[in-house]
Amino acid sequence: MSHYTIGLDYGSNSVRCLVVDVANGRELGVAVWTYASGDAGVLTDPTNPHVARQSPMDFVEGLRQTVPPALAQAAQATGFSPAKIIGIGVDTTGSTPIPVDAALQPLAAKPEFAGNLNAYAWMWKDHSGMDEAERITALAKQHRPQYLAKCGGTYSSEWLFSKIWHCYHADRTVFDAAFTWLEFADFIPAVLAGITDIAQVKAGICPAGHKAMYCADWGGYPDSEFLSLLAPEIGALRARLPQTVTTSDQVAGTLSPAWAAELGLPVGIPIAVGAFDAHLGAVGAGVGQGSMVKIIGTSTCDCLVAPNTEPLPDIPGVCGIVNGSILPGYYGIEAGQSAVGDIFNWFVKHVCRGEGKLHGQLRAEVEKDKPGQSGLLALDWENGNRTILTDARLTGLILGLTLHTTQAQIYRALIEATAFGARRILDRIEEYDVKVTKVINCGGIAEKDPMFMQIYADVLGRPMVISGSAQTCALGSAIMAAVVAGKAAGGYATCEEAQAAMCSYKDTVYTPIPANQAVYQELYGLYCELHDSFGVRGTSFDHFAVMKQLLDIRRRAVQ
Amino acid sequence: MSHYTIGLDYGSNSVRCLVVDVANGRELGVAVWTYASGDAGVLTDPTNPHVARQSPMDFVEGLRQTVPPALAQAAQATGFSPAKIIGIGVDTTGSTPIPVDAALQPLAAKPEFAGNLNAYAWMWKDHSGMDEAERITALAKQHRPQYLAKCGGTYSSEWLFSKIWHCYHADRTVFDAAFTWLEFADFIPAVLAGITDIAQVKAGICPAGHKAMYCADWGGYPDSEFLSLLAPEIGALRARLPQTVTTSDQVAGTLSPAWAAELGLPVGIPIAVGAFDAHLGAVGAGVGQGSMVKIIGTSTCDCLVAPNTEPLPDIPGVCGIVNGSILPGYYGIEAGQSAVGDIFNWFVKHVCRGEGKLHGQLRAEVEKDKPGQSGLLALDWENGNRTILTDARLTGLILGLTLHTTQAQIYRALIEATAFGARRILDRIEEYDVKVTKVINCGGIAEKDPMFMQIYADVLGRPMVISGSAQTCALGSAIMAAVVAGKAAGGYATCEEAQAAMCSYKDTVYTPIPANQAVYQELYGLYCELHDSFGVRGTSFDHFAVMKQLLDIRRRAVQ
Repeated sequence: MSHYTIGLDYGSNSVRCLVVDVANGRELGVAVWTYASGDAGVLTDPTNPHVARQSPMDFVEGLRQTVPPALAQAAQATGFSPAKIIGIGVDTTGSTPIPVDAALQPLAAKPEFAGNLNAYAWMWKDHSGMDEAERITALAKQHRPQYLAKCGGTYSSEWLFSKIWHCYHADRTVFDAAFTWLEFADFIPAVLAGITDIAQVKAGICPAGHKAMYCADWGGYPDSEFLSLLAPEIGALRARLPQTVTTSDQVAGTLSPAWAAELGLPVGIPIAVGAFDAHLGAVGAGVGQGSMVKIIGTSTCDCLVAPNTEPLPDIPGVCGIVNGSILPGYYGIEAGQSAVGDIFNWFVKHVCRGEGKLHGQLRAEVEKDKPGQSGLLALDWENGNRTILTDARLTGLILGLTLHTTQAQIYRALIEATAFGARRILDRIEEYDVKVTKVINCGGIAEKDPMFMQIYADVLGRPMVISGSAQTCALGSAIMAAVVAGKAAGGYATCEEAQAAMCSYKDTVYTPIPANQAVYQELYGLYCELHDSFGVRGTSFDHFAVMKQLLDIRRRAVQ
Repeated sequence: MSHYTIGLDYGSNSVRCLVVDVANGRELGVAVWTYASGDAGVLTDPTNPHVARQSPMDFVEGLRQTVPPALAQAAQATGFSPAKIIGIGVDTTGSTPIPVDAALQPLAAKPEFAGNLNAYAWMWKDHSGMDEAERITALAKQHRPQYLAKCGGTYSSEWLFSKIWHCYHADRTVFDAAFTWLEFADFIPAVLAGITDIAQVKAGICPAGHKAMYCADWGGYPDSEFLSLLAPEIGALRARLPQTVTTSDQVAGTLSPAWAAELGLPVGIPIAVGAFDAHLGAVGAGVGQGSMVKIIGTSTCDCLVAPNTEPLPDIPGVCGIVNGSILPGYYGIEAGQSAVGDIFNWFVKHVCRGEGKLHGQLRAEVEKDKPGQSGLLALDWENGNRTILTDARLTGLILGLTLHTTQAQIYRALIEATAFGARRILDRIEEYDVKVTKVINCGGIAEKDPMFMQIYADVLGRPMVISGSAQTCALGSAIMAAVVAGKAAGGYATCEEAQAAMCSYKDTVYTPIPANQAVYQELYGLYCELHDSFGVRGTSFDHFAVMKQLLDIRRRAVQ
């Protein structure tokens, strides 16, 4: 008999429900719903550009809007029936914490907080806690340096305690009314399971480890003495955070009768512990030892795993290393570039003032160019640098411009810059003995832009594989659902087994072209020189040779 | 009785004849003729992109095509008559040497050299002697370092001996047939005066000093022992170069009866010794002690003078310091930027793919922006750096790019970059005690772009004056014509007297705005850091602070 699972993927602007065949990963039904509130689900504050909130009611409504239609679509497939659904997995954005009351109900749903954005979900890209983040970094440096070592040396304004502390400063009423704060990824499983007691919550190690400095090495969350340095009330809050924190192959709860009825699913099927979209996306793309998954979109998220059988050293500048955050039994390593597709979109829209179709035109003009031919070199920092410099106050740079430089050459140089940035991350991770022999790519650019992928293959010097699924996040959730269901129920005993059955790759593989690799190796050397000079304090040398070497490389390229 | 002079201005693509009232500089008649040969007078070689030649016959024909119509136009003014013309001045491009026979007739005019571009005029922008230029620089460094000190340390491929030596290598027949080589600026006065004997030629110190390493300190041209290192035949050529080399307030000869008849001018009026267009343009713009004349076009030429009553030290990186090359009694100092207008044109045409009108649109979008507001900083090296780095192998750089950076902001940053480049030149010259209290600007950009001029005023920290004449080169030639005519004939005894009467300024003066100056001073500091790091070997420091300081400056700008 066939079995199916549901993967729920909560993105920044919409939620997706995927119904998957456990045997082979085939996608039988999918439904997407854009959040109703604000601008595609994002609520902003005209007086503060750093505010980005979301409605937890939208998150709940998303279940009703996507599960039934996805099931209806799946029902057209032979042999499918909702009764054969054996589990649910959930991924969400994050850190997107939600202030809730003692019954785990969002404060935003209460009449007294209607319209108060501080009572809503604090979206991952909310930066209103910038000052608090800096102060947390400084406090940790002084008192608990070990906390920072796992998150690249800087605590971000996007993360849990920056947001909670900012709420403490900005809206004491909301802070005081919040019994606790739940990450979005923990909130949805609790809702589905009908959990109303914090003691019953099984929270994800992925959000806790990557955003809340949770680590078994120091007994979980930062100790309350440290948190009391933020505010005594935050020190006290520690005991009201979810105390059970675990991996996504564990059961967060079982589907409540009420939600089973409302969604048309079997009562009591297991719900996997939640995780972040990128991490389960890596699972859905087939991440494993020796591979790196790159989710390439407006920005890029890189995910790798390393066995947890021996301790993994801290990797400087890599923003997150968390035991079990991607796959149980492995350290999850998360890195990324703050802008990739966003850079090309910016160039086309703001610099060229072009339409979307200009992307294709520009690519066509330079797809046959040889590496180095333009004489250009760029730094991909238009939105700062997330890894390995963890510095939002870095900006983009282009050099090698001449009176003959064309729009399309700059476009290609920007693509190359993102490839060099990707290589710099890979090199740093490999320096710490996490070896990468294959790169698995996900996202629209990976599927649609052969020039981009070939440049990446040539710069990274590894085969570039494309994920078979276009919705790896939801697929990763569905894989976790199959694991929590277990072998006896028709699922799998381990994530590896589930991935082996349910993940696939496209036929096209981009392999490095040695001649291109050689030129890009030279250009990458120059990129690193600029990367360190502009990005690292205390790198002392002139750049006298940079422009000349580019001209030499260009001359050789066009010979 | 009124008196008039003629200023002949030979540019790259056309010649201009101006008829001027000696009393006040009023322009009574003007005629322009585009050279007939090739592409607007420029003859190229499809097999060698560095070749740019011109027809000396075009230069001669230009007299017939412009003097009579300019006189005809002037004749409509009350009181004018060609009989009241008291002198002729000539400026040309350079170094544009012309191989001639013993009677000073261009080889190009001889049937046996018809169509042989090597027998034509070697236009200033001909770079076919690149290799020879490098070898001359190396030889001079080794044997006669003093020769290089006055020309910025590098002998250019654009200059006389590079071209002659390249002809020696590339076309021995032409080299052997050339009795001597005349600079364009010396050729035209000799033609008008009917001079057919090299002993009668009075050559300009401006071409000789700036392009042929001519200097009284070492007895004129480079000694024949040095020139024999190039080739014994070039050593021997030295004696056949013009031996009388002098300033443009001296008479090169008097108008021959034949040319007087042909052009409709009085026989025997004096012809001033020729000089380069930019230098006489500076004279026409009113250059004097304490002022700098900027001729702003596709590139920029900066001219200054310093009294020759005491020796002027060499100024590192300033490409030409020649006693008398602009005004008699003063050292002429020439500097410049290899691209200014060309950078804006490149950006609009190649990066924005816009039409000419886009210049105005982009200016309009950012003219009210505050200095530093964009967070951008650029190096103006899209065509290399002429002064003070004298390095063609430098390229353009833009940094501070973010996902919000606009086309118009980049446009403004490019203007600012050229202003910083201009400031760097000014600072270097002032370090050597040539003080500048006023900048006189010429050219279309100066007349038409108030934003550009205000930025320059704010960056350079001096009042920016605009020349009253739009044709300062021809006016400068007409001024020299009035000086060679002399007071008795209705002209002037000195250049200063003539300038005082004949030069004018527009009413609009751009004065520095202190608040803007302060911000630009900071940005200029960052510009200098990048300038030295990328342009000077051995400048050792990181650039870690550059991007952050730009963000700080931007934040303050928009506060």
